Amino acid sequence: MSRIRTPVVIINFKTYPQATGENAVVLAKTCEAVSKEFNVPIVVAPQISDLYRVSQVVDIPVFSQHMDPGEQGRFTGHVLGEALVEAGCSGTLLNHSENRMQLADVEMAVTKARKLNLYTVVCTNNPNVSVAASTMKPDSVAVEPPELIGTGISVSQAQPEVIRGTVELIRDVNKDVVILCGAGISNGDDVSAAMKLGSQGVLLASAVAKSDKPGAVLRSLTHPLRK
Amino acid sequence: MSRIRTPVVIINFKTYPQATGENAVVLAKTCEAVSKEFNVPIVVAPQISDLYRVSQVVDIPVFSQHMDPGEQGRFTGHVLGEALVEAGCSGTLLNHSENRMQLADVEMAVTKARKLNLYTVVCTNNPNVSVAASTMKPDSVAVEPPELIGTGISVSQAQPEVIRGTVELIRDVNKDVVILCGAGISNGDDVSAAMKLGSQGVLLASAVAKSDKPGAVLRSLTHPLRK
Amino acid sequence: MSRIRTPVVIINFKTYPQATGENAVVLAKTCEAVSKEFNVPIVVAPQISDLYRVSQVVDIPVFSQHMDPGEQGRFTGHVLGEALVEAGCSGTLLNHSENRMQLADVEMAVTKARKLNLYTVVCTNNPNVSVAASTMKPDSVAVEPPELIGTGISVSQAQPEVIRGTVELIRDVNKDVVILCGAGISNGDDVSAAMKLGSQGVLLASAVAKSDKPGAVLRSLTHPLRK
Amino acid sequence: MSRIRTPVVIINFKTYPQATGENAVVLAKTCEAVSKEFNVPIVVAPQISDLYRVSQVVDIPVFSQHMDPGEQGRFTGHVLGEALVEAGCSGTLLNHSENRMQLADVEMAVTKARKLNLYTVVCTNNPNVSVAASTMKPDSVAVEPPELIGTGISVSQAQPEVIRGTVELIRDVNKDVVILCGAGISNGDDVSAAMKLGSQGVLLASAVAKSDKPGAVLRSLTHPLRK
Repeated sequence: MSRIRTPVVIINFKTYPQATGENAVVLAKTCEAVSKEFNVPIVVAPQISDLYRVSQVVDIPVFSQHMDPGEQGRFTGHVLGEALVEAGCSGTLLNHSENRMQLADVEMAVTKARKLNLYTVVCTNNPNVSVAASTMKPDSVAVEPPELIGTGISVSQAQPEVIRGTVELIRDVNKDVVILCGAGISNGDDVSAAMKLGSQGVLLASAVAKSDKPGAVLRSLTHPLRK
Repeated sequence: MSRIRTPVVIINFKTYPQATGENAVVLAKTCEAVSKEFNVPIVVAPQISDLYRVSQVVDIPVFSQHMDPGEQGRFTGHVLGEALVEAGCSGTLLNHSENRMQLADVEMAVTKARKLNLYTVVCTNNPNVSVAASTMKPDSVAVEPPELIGTGISVSQAQPEVIRGTVELIRDVNKDVVILCGAGISNGDDVSAAMKLGSQGVLLASAVAKSDKPGAVLRSLTHPLRK
Repeated sequence: MSRIRTPVVIINFKTYPQATGENAVVLAKTCEAVSKEFNVPIVVAPQISDLYRVSQVVDIPVFSQHMDPGEQGRFTGHVLGEALVEAGCSGTLLNHSENRMQLADVEMAVTKARKLNLYTVVCTNNPNVSVAASTMKPDSVAVEPPELIGTGISVSQAQPEVIRGTVELIRDVNKDVVILCGAGISNGDDVSAAMKLGSQGVLLASAVAKSDKPGAVLRSLTHPLRK
Repeated sequence: MSRIRTPVVIINFKTYPQATGENAVVLAKTCEAVSKEFNVPIVVAPQISDLYRVSQVVDIPVFSQHMDPGEQGRFTGHVLGEALVEAGCSGTLLNHSENRMQLADVEMAVTKARKLNLYTVVCTNNPNVSVAASTMKPDSVAVEPPELIGTGISVSQAQPEVIRGTVELIRDVNKDVVILCGAGISNGDDVSAAMKLGSQGVLLASAVAKSDKPGAVLRSLTHPLRK
């Protein structure tokens, strides 16, 4: 797996109209511009139907929002790793709180992604689940208390113990996994707080994907991460 | 909805490696060539991540293999109608036997697709379910006995009563819906049999998508449909 | 199927602590007492693990809150019709908004229940879905706008057009199915309104199952239904 | 949690007709008789609707085949821990291969069961998933390669490395969890082999629940476990 440099910012485009189709392309280009201007790794995660379109025009990592486990063949409507590679993806979110996966399927998808050299970010809802996910050896785990997602109340400021507890518990079982946090991250202070608690990056969505000034938000978010 | 002329042939690319990424583009072009040569409507249904790529290079209808119900916004990894429109789709399969949907979600997706001018094909497993689906007023219903899918044993020859029964029962509640059949369709004789039983087209996958001579198979399949 | 006399009141015990275990037995006996006192059919739907316990001590119909489709054998944790019969059930709710089922599974479960002589109540969320469900020939359809469930705002008073529309549309395709309504029903006025709109009974939960005086609530609810 | 003595034999009744309703009671009594005769702990896991009926007449542990996560209240058809306690259960299987649960739900259910003093057996499909499950601190993990379930080909003889690998990997993260194995266990030799590989008991279904001589099968199975 070509590792991604940390600290990293991952932008989940979700299914916001401001981040769909041609808008996804424009937003991804804005992310790319800020990433290059400040030399901070930014990853974009557009909708599955936009992956090819976006990956063709930006030179930053493009991740899928989801990947199904399973081998190529008799599946209809499923999103397999091989198709993600063909679409220009270099990684995928897994088990997002809006797209929870079965325990066995998370493990199967992580294992499959590793074979395909796709970077995996397993989303989790609390420290215990983060530890369980870490034992499956994904590239990264992103803890996001579901009750804060989309609220603008940041996990790093409102529930610092979640991040601190997650980092401590994970390191007992996995020294290497990249630990991210998400939920409610909307400005540089949230990012700073997350970094101080041991997070190696952030996963966020609405603050950027719904903004009418995403470039300004990205500048604020990445400020504490610049060298 | 811009109606699709019948009889129609819909090719589900599933997740076969021969129909993924660049291979999906090549296969779609073969479908387009046969469609134009013989003036028979052929619809292609590639994987979601290939929709944009395919729709940019062919001039035949491109359908999604699946669409989730729901409005744009806070969904991650979901496939919404607006994104399909942006990706160049003009329709979608729904409730395929490999991707069954909840009763309420089928209705919500059909209603949403209608607003977006997306053609809907609701897949069903028997005559009773076909009738239930028809009352939701999709553009088309495709009955496919799951036990025959991928077998090469065609529904039209092995279970003619399924098609005949479906046609009769549906017409009591819906005069307009286009009735298709699928499962095991692999040559012109299967298509002829389906047409005689009242089907207005066929939905198939492996016979074309796994073939090393898809053009030849398509020529055979469309032979009984030429004017 | 031994038909259930209408108008009928069905009490869904959900998983309320006041309606679990020994409390379920006490509540079912209260329902039985009111049913006999006023000669109004009342059906109780306790949790699956309470079905046997309740059915042994009351002489009114006991329904399950859910039933899975499928034949006896290799299923773990599933709730099959044969087990419901053994537990003393005479019917089941299907597709409750808190336990939505796939389109094909609703049809399979209705068909299986009919063979086992179990009365079926398919829950639906709007008039269109009610029509689709009616074509599967269950004994009853219960329309419940999900946004009103548990609110105390009754469908019959807040959304009369939902009940009226459901009744009209269903009768085009099924003359016999018993049409119920639910969501927010909490007193006799709500029941009266439902009856006037063409409903043949009501399905409700919290107003009775969470009440500390369920007998009084049942007396109010059944008042308009007494002969 | 009142611990269960090991080695232990858990009999999953699944939904076999021979283990439903009154038959479940008879089979549970046979299990009880063998358990007492040879002083080997045997746990029975009947269908949810049979739990109360069985727990009232036997004096061995009765487990549920499944438990949903979540708090009491607005759920319909769900199986909550409090209801299991009321039904006389002292534990539950979770995440059986025929009833897979989401990663976050497994953790939530294990945590809830612990509060209710219910013994948890998390079923897993391979060594990696077993380790992930073990970090959630259930009482027990039962590894069962799904492809062997119901075959009569025992995991302990056909895939010894699965058991050995599971034991080794789990002990790195959890010293206390009881490690069981299942799939294809049908006689005393299978049990002996499992014990030698480090298993502390077995989980099985068809060999007992479908047998017309379950007592004889249980005597064979428990032979290697007698003191």
